[in-house]
Formats: sequence, structure tokens, C-alpha cells
Amino acid sequence: MEKLDKITKIRHSLAHLLGASIVSLYPGSKVTLGPAIDNGFYYDVDIVEKIADSDLSKIEAEMNKILKTWSTFEKKVLTKEEALKLFAGNEYKIELINEIDKKGEEITVYQSGSFVDLCRGGHVDNVKEIKEGSFNLDRIAGAYWRGNENNKMLTRIYGLAFETKEELKKYINQREEALARDHKKLGKELDLFLIDEKVGKGLPLWTPKGTAIKFELENFTRELERKYNYEHVETPYLGAEELYKTSGHLDHYSKNMYAPIDMDGDKFYLRPMACPHHIRMYQRKQWSYKDLPIRYAEIADYNRYEKSGELMGMIRVRKFQLTDGHLFVAPEGIKDEFKLVCNMIIEGMKGLGLIDIVSYRFSKRDPENKEKYYPDDNLWDNAERLMKEALDELGLDYVEAKDEAAFYGPKLDVQAKNVNGKEDTLFTAQMDFLLPEKFDMEYTDVDGKKKRPVMIHRSTIGCLERTFGFLIEHFGGAFPIWLSPVQVMVLPISEHQKEYADSVYKTLKEYNIRTELDVSNESLGKRIRNAKMQKIPYVIVIGDKEKEAKVITVEGRTEKLEGITIEKFLEKIKEEIMERKLN
Amino acid sequence: MEKLDKITKIRHSLAHLLGASIVSLYPGSKVTLGPAIDNGFYYDVDIVEKIADSDLSKIEAEMNKILKTWSTFEKKVLTKEEALKLFAGNEYKIELINEIDKKGEEITVYQSGSFVDLCRGGHVDNVKEIKEGSFNLDRIAGAYWRGNENNKMLTRIYGLAFETKEELKKYINQREEALARDHKKLGKELDLFLIDEKVGKGLPLWTPKGTAIKFELENFTRELERKYNYEHVETPYLGAEELYKTSGHLDHYSKNMYAPIDMDGDKFYLRPMACPHHIRMYQRKQWSYKDLPIRYAEIADYNRYEKSGELMGMIRVRKFQLTDGHLFVAPEGIKDEFKLVCNMIIEGMKGLGLIDIVSYRFSKRDPENKEKYYPDDNLWDNAERLMKEALDELGLDYVEAKDEAAFYGPKLDVQAKNVNGKEDTLFTAQMDFLLPEKFDMEYTDVDGKKKRPVMIHRSTIGCLERTFGFLIEHFGGAFPIWLSPVQVMVLPISEHQKEYADSVYKTLKEYNIRTELDVSNESLGKRIRNAKMQKIPYVIVIGDKEKEAKVITVEGRTEKLEGITIEKFLEKIKEEIMERKLN
Repeated sequence: MEKLDKITKIRHSLAHLLGASIVSLYPGSKVTLGPAIDNGFYYDVDIVEKIADSDLSKIEAEMNKILKTWSTFEKKVLTKEEALKLFAGNEYKIELINEIDKKGEEITVYQSGSFVDLCRGGHVDNVKEIKEGSFNLDRIAGAYWRGNENNKMLTRIYGLAFETKEELKKYINQREEALARDHKKLGKELDLFLIDEKVGKGLPLWTPKGTAIKFELENFTRELERKYNYEHVETPYLGAEELYKTSGHLDHYSKNMYAPIDMDGDKFYLRPMACPHHIRMYQRKQWSYKDLPIRYAEIADYNRYEKSGELMGMIRVRKFQLTDGHLFVAPEGIKDEFKLVCNMIIEGMKGLGLIDIVSYRFSKRDPENKEKYYPDDNLWDNAERLMKEALDELGLDYVEAKDEAAFYGPKLDVQAKNVNGKEDTLFTAQMDFLLPEKFDMEYTDVDGKKKRPVMIHRSTIGCLERTFGFLIEHFGGAFPIWLSPVQVMVLPISEHQKEYADSVYKTLKEYNIRTELDVSNESLGKRIRNAKMQKIPYVIVIGDKEKEAKVITVEGRTEKLEGITIEKFLEKIKEEIMERKLN
Repeated sequence: MEKLDKITKIRHSLAHLLGASIVSLYPGSKVTLGPAIDNGFYYDVDIVEKIADSDLSKIEAEMNKILKTWSTFEKKVLTKEEALKLFAGNEYKIELINEIDKKGEEITVYQSGSFVDLCRGGHVDNVKEIKEGSFNLDRIAGAYWRGNENNKMLTRIYGLAFETKEELKKYINQREEALARDHKKLGKELDLFLIDEKVGKGLPLWTPKGTAIKFELENFTRELERKYNYEHVETPYLGAEELYKTSGHLDHYSKNMYAPIDMDGDKFYLRPMACPHHIRMYQRKQWSYKDLPIRYAEIADYNRYEKSGELMGMIRVRKFQLTDGHLFVAPEGIKDEFKLVCNMIIEGMKGLGLIDIVSYRFSKRDPENKEKYYPDDNLWDNAERLMKEALDELGLDYVEAKDEAAFYGPKLDVQAKNVNGKEDTLFTAQMDFLLPEKFDMEYTDVDGKKKRPVMIHRSTIGCLERTFGFLIEHFGGAFPIWLSPVQVMVLPISEHQKEYADSVYKTLKEYNIRTELDVSNESLGKRIRNAKMQKIPYVIVIGDKEKEAKVITVEGRTEKLEGITIEKFLEKIKEEIMERKLN
């Protein structure tokens, strides 16, 4: 039997306890299977009456009551006949007993108090290890016996369990926090995007508020790219069959691509990547070593196959936009260029406030196992050495991962933890030796000879949809002012200040501040609450005092500015917006 | 016989003259068919030797020689036998004679000088009507006998012909001008866009220079839309089958759509229009009359079916972006909103310098023939009346076109002549009564009742690709500074001023002026010519004099600014760019 850690034993023991409580409260119910899971345990039961979430506290109380009467889990080995007799009337356990017997395995049961269950073991040695308040019952769901929809639907009762009461509490808080920050939930509450089945699964629509944020992210991306001397291009989201035959995508990547569309006898694909388009852009001209590196950037439309069951908000979609870029570099230029790429990515993450949550993973080939990789020792050794030098000179705290490179070259992954603590790859910078060969790319070197450039794939701030989803959760919807879809809300206390409030609103609009004016019939309190619910960074409240003095009172997220002039306020927020302040 | 105008008779007569000249110069050649065409005439001949464009002057001389010997065209009616005898050995004419006979028509020939041709007539009464120098031979092409590729390939000789020498000259000049301004030619020369068959027919790529212009057009569009209180949204270029079933596009518009793509059992279409997406955006909320009009704008991706043979540069493409917009208006709000739409379109055209070349066409239904149109007299009468009032109040010089409305509502077309003098519809503002019904759209009116909004389709500056093509031709590639992909070129006279030139270049870049520095080994004259060929609006030339005085000398398109400071120059061009000056 596998060796189990303490918490798994606790959780498994609690499943027994849950089973015992059900049988005690609902006599005649049949227990079936009850394992430990990630955050606790569950038990699937064929229960004699329908129960609801409101019954959970009663069951939990029964568990606590029974727990006090238990001490250990006593193991007994039974013959098949003994076992069948013991579980007579429980067709589920009988099915399991027959299976165990068929495999020639030992049939064991464990007893605590008066509750005996068919079980392989893996419990706490003493039930005292289960601390008071360290578990609770979470929710009820339906589950088919053994997951087969032709079988009977059972009642699954989930419990949460940790070693201590404090850990349980912490977990529940974290989960609530994550749920409150969930980008799908906030996206709906704050009206940021829309998933509409009639438009199509996996095809989000950006609402006016979401689009305001998208434009800011696009401007941020393009400014950064301009600073790093990228040239912007725009290329179509379709590509002819020939293009993806040459690139090899049809041979090696087609499971991620959608079926082609026939256009007058030619097949066109929704593109899964823009590299071939940028390569053809490069190839429209002859280049010399003096022109290199060539750097193309594009907020590029991509379509990659996702199963409908795996679609998720803005994170897993069927159409997305990558802040994409490709560089064409002389092999000896790799180090400098790769450093620039890293600097740019870091600057991007700093700008978005994500820098503190990322880690770096440098994936190389396995020198003992070269046949998996593009066959050119020189290129690999040169690139890996130069990338490592670059990373060291930048002082990045990275992990080296042997045998994790792509087939076509080494790469750096930038990873981040999301609100649930799960690590995602946000973006990648990859060397590519293969595509330049497939497309027969070249430049003229200083000696007049034709040479082959190395290609670098990279993104500036990743995929806009995913980064947006990430930012919603990271900021919990309370975006910094430069990203806020509504930057200022203007609220007159009553009708009396409506005209002045309107002039304040118009002044702000004139300066391109995204402003709203709420003169609805709701009470001031309600209107302030609405604005706070919308997580608007600044709420201007205008009463008679402000009207007379021609000033405004501003409630920020952390400060209150009483009776300041509109000019002063404009100066302040224009600076915050220009500098893209994060708080 | 149809009545022909004078110029057609001249052109037809010249076709005879061309035939006579071929037979005279190349004895044994067989003439076949020679009609008048739009700008002249041609003759298809089965010629005894291969001729080239260089032979045209010789043939033209022969035409002028023979012309002097001709006076009139003598008609003769022949029997079939006489005709077959006359054209014995010319299998083409024999085929024609047999056909005429079969149809029971009269067989006629016309003789001038010694040249007799099978012909239905339609010549000048006297060859003196053909003025000296009013025609020439244009070019040679191949053409299958009767256009059938299974037949023999003949030689087609094209001629240009007008009533006077001056008209011919004017036409040739216009054509040269149009050719020089052709957006495909300029697009290549100025490196603005790329059509790459490997990427796909009809799918242009925007180069860095083209993309710079595209971004300017996008900013221009969005600023204008913001000014007119549109909300920007972004919606996907795919739509589920259900969406286009509801909208009716699949029933009535599918010949313009590409085949669907299957995604896990759902069919998705590349969208031909974004209206359904914007409708679903509207329907994400409940609206009251106080919220109307709702105005959505999007630079929306479209795909419409075009035959591969009809694709043309940026004008006819398979994927394009429309500066799209949809308004949802209460029926009584049509007039005000339609006025705003017109004002916005006018402002857009003024901004792009196109206002002087457009005309307006107001298309209404035919009140005598209502069954072709959406059946609601009230809606139609109300909308047409309010649109007319709006147009009159705006003082627009428009034409009313009865029975030219769309099925679903009246519309205004804004049309413009391109460089060839051909009229194109640049954009349209259309009322739509149908889609709001199909999608069951509603808002709550002041009386608390649910009402149906009217939808207005409109674009801000049309389709970006087509407008771009139009602008290239309109400006002949010499864009105003705000649109120029390179706004300033910096040229040091020699090595000596390189450092200072570089500092000038960097200063301009810092102020986001799109600047290039040419320090190549070419002569100054060559580098200036290159910059002028690229139609860069300002060329800064830096010699020792400028270097010492810390000034610059600037050659603009129409002015020369000698020895001004960089600050002064920056001030000047920043103002020109900010104001989007057109020259």
C-alpha cells in the first residue's frame, strides 16, 4: 500500500465518519465509496431521503457527536462469504467485494465504534489526531455510481478538512477571496466582457468598459514596443494551406487548428500563429547585416482549437489576440537582443504591477539526448551560452530546466501564480532555428555571403484576453486609474447642484478623463455605494458648499480631498494617468 | 439597327481601317471581328507573322496612308454564295456568314477603297469626320476566336480614338496620371502594403509604413466617434450559425459568406457583418428610453466572398476592417440622430480631404410598389420624412432615388469619383426596421411599455482598406504630414555632420515624429532624390553651416526653410500634425 501523509489519513478517516453519520441519521441508506481529496473528502451515498445543503449542519453535528465515541480504526480480514454477509443488501459494496475477490486481493474492513466499512486502510492511528473545528461539510452534489451515467445517481457530500482549525479557516477565506476576484464573476458585475452562446462559445465580446481597458493595454503595449524599436505590422488572421505546409504547422500542430475554409479552390486556415506571416513580411525585401535585427510587433489575431468543455471566461478562448512579435537576428546578435527582450518583458510586467509575482524558467535541451532536438550543435551551444550570459548579466533569479526546450530552440518562460495559487505561463521568449530554414530566409553578411538569421518569438504582455483576465483578478476589479473604464464619477447631492455638477463633468470629459455623471433619483448614499461597487477610483461629491466655492470634494480609494479646485484635481489625476500609477 | 453616336461610328470605321492596313502590310493575314469599344476600337486578326508593340507605329502609319485614299463606306447586299466566294479562304468570316444566313438575316459588306469587310454597318458618312491625330494604336494582346479557349489564339490590336486630337491627348494624360496614382503601383513603390500569394489571395499585409498610416486612420476614426458620443466595443470576427439564422443572413446573404467551420459540432461563420454582434451587445442589458440612443462603434473585421479573379489590391479583398457602427434609436429620435450621423460623416471626409469629391444619394422605397419592402407604412413614412427634413436642414445637395432603398429601410449613400472618374459608394447610412424585429429588441418607453428601437447602420470613414487605397490614389502617395509614414528625413551632407545630424534625428524621435536618418554612402543628391521619391514631406539637410549655427535647413514640398532652429521646426510640424493639416 502506498504511504500516505497525515492529512490524507485524516481526510480518509473523516469520510468513514461521514458515512457513519449518514447511516445513523438516515437508517437504511447505503454507503458506497468515500475517498480523501485535495481539500478534504467526500462520500457517495444512496440515501433514503432527498437532502439539501441546509441538512449539512445537522450531519456535521452528528459527525462531531460520533467522533467523540471513536478511538481507532480496527482492521479485520474477511473471507468473501463473510464480507458478502456483512454487506448483504448493499449492492454497491457487493459489487466491490466481488471485484476485490476476482483480483485475488485480501478483503479488509475497518471498524470504528459500531461503524464497519469495506476499506483498504489508510486512517489515523488515533482519532484524537482529528482536531476540533478542523473540518466541515461543504456542499452536496449528484454523482453516478462509478461515474457511469447508466448507473444510479447517488448523493455526494463534500467535506473540507485540514490539520487545524486555523488552516481550514485560512483555506475558506482564500477561496472566498478567489471567488470574489474571479474574473468571470467580476467581468459580469463590472460589465467588462460578455460571453454569449448565441454569438458563439469561446468568443468573448468586449463591452464598452472592457474595450476602454483593452485600448489602454494596446497603447501601453505599442508604446513599449516603440521604445524598444519594434516596427508595427498588421497581418491577416487567415493563411493559405501552402503557408502552413511550408512552416510545418500542418504536419505538427494541426490538432490545435480548426478545419480549413475553401475559397475558390484554395484552402485557408484560421491561423494558430503569426510567425509565417511575419516571415513573409521579412521576405518582401533583401536585407543586409546592417539592417538586422528586424523587429516586427503586432497585436495579432489567433485561433487555436479548444474543446467546448474547456473554455473558461477570458482565460481559455477560441479567438484571442497576442501582443506578438518576431525578431530576425544574426546568430552573433542573440545575446544583446535576448537581453533587450527580457528587459522589455520586465518593463511590461512592472508597468502592469505583476513583477513581484513572476518567476523565470530557462529551458534548455538535454545534451545527452540530442536526437529530440533540431540538429545543429553549434547553434544550440551558442544560443544557450549567450542566453545564460544574458540572464546572468541581468541578474534574474531563474531556474534552469534541462530537456524542456522546444524542438526548435531554447526558451525562457515567465510564470506567475494566479489568485488560486496555480502557476501559469504568462509569456515566453523562444529561439527558433527551424522556421528560418523552412522558409529559406537569409541576409547578406559583411563578407557578401548569404547567411541564415535566427528567429526569436516573444510577446510583450502576453495574450490580451488572458492578461486582462489575470489583471481583473489581480486588482480584484479595482484597476489603477489609467486602466479604470470609468475614472471619475460626479455626484451632485441634490437637484440644486445639478448644473454645477454638469459643468464639472464636462470639464473632465474635455480633458479626456473617462467620467460619468449620476443624476438619477437614487439617494446620495445609494449613488456613492453604486460608484464604489463599480470600483471607480474617484467619486466627486458636490453640495452647496462646493457649488458656492467653485470647488469639489473627492473621495478616492484611500484619501479624501475636501474642497479642492477642479484644476488641482485635474493636474493630480492627469499625472497619475500619464505615469500609469499603480495605486 | 441601333442608332449609334458619332464617336462610335468613328471608332467602328477605324476598325475597318486597321483591318485594311493589316492586310496591306501582312498579305495573307485573315481579319475576323473588329468592334468599337469604350475608348476606341480593336481588331482580332489571324496574322501571318508574329508582331509586337514595336510594330504598332508602322501599322499606324499605314492606317494614315490608306485613310487619305478613302472617302465613304459603300454598302452591298450579297447572297450567301457571293459572300462565301468573296471571303473564300477566311474560315472565320465563313463561320460568320453561315450564322447570319441561318438566322435569316441580310448579308452585307462595306467597301472603302479596295477593302471590303463583312459588316452590319454603322460607319461615318464621310471619312473626313476622322480627324488627323485623333486616334492611335495602343497595344497588342492575345484573344481566342470568339473568346473560346478551345479555338485558335488570334492577335488583338487595340486602338484609342476620340473626336479630336485634343481629346485623345487628354485621355492619354488622364490614363497616365491614373496609372501613376494607382494604389497597387504606389503601394509597392512606397512599401505600404503587400499582397503575398503564399499568405493568401485577397489578404493584404500592412507593412510598417502602411501600419503607421492605418494607426493614424484608426485614431482619427476613434477620436471622431468619441466626439459624437459613441461607445467603442470589440466583437469577434466569427459568429455561430444560430446568430446568422436569426438575423436572416444565412437565408438572404449566404452567397457572400464563406463556408462554415465546425468547432466541436457547432458551426461558425467568418462574419460578413457585425450587426448581430452589436445587437447581442445591446441585449446584454435592459434599456429605458432615457438611455437611448445607444451608439456602438467598432473597427470591425469582416469577411465577404470575392471571386479570386475579382480581387484588386486594397479595393477588393477577402478580409477587411470596416469603421463600423450601429445605433439603436427610438423611432421619434431618427431625425436628430440621422443628422448627427451625416455631420459625422461630413466631418470625417473633410478631415481626410475628400469632401469636395463626394455626392449624396437618398434612396427611398417606391410608394407605388410597396410589396418589395418591409411592411410598415408608418415606419417608412416617418423615417423618410425625418431623413428628408434632416438632409434639407443640413443643406446637403442630394439626389432622391425612388425604389432604391434597401428592403429593410431607406438609406443615404455617399459616393465619390476615383482617379479614373468612376463613381464608387464610399459609405452608407441605413435605417433598419427588420433586424430589431428579428432579434426581438426592445426598450422601455416613458409610458412603461416595451417598444422596438430602430437600428441605424453607418460607417465613419468606410472600410479601412478601401479608404486607404482611395487615399493613396487621391494624394498620389504624397500624404499630408499626419498620415505620412515617414514625416522627416535627416540627411547630413557628409561624415562631418553625422554626429549633429544624429542628435537632430534623436530629438525629433523623442517628440514622436516619425523620422529617418540616411547616412548611407550615396551622394547627397541621390539621397535627396530617394527621400523625394518616398514622398517624405520634410527633408532636413545638414551641412557645416547648420552644424556650426546649431540650426537646420528644411526642404518641404512647397517651401524651403533655411537655417531655422529645431525648436521652431518642431513647433511648426507638431501643429501641422495635431491639426491634421491636409497640405
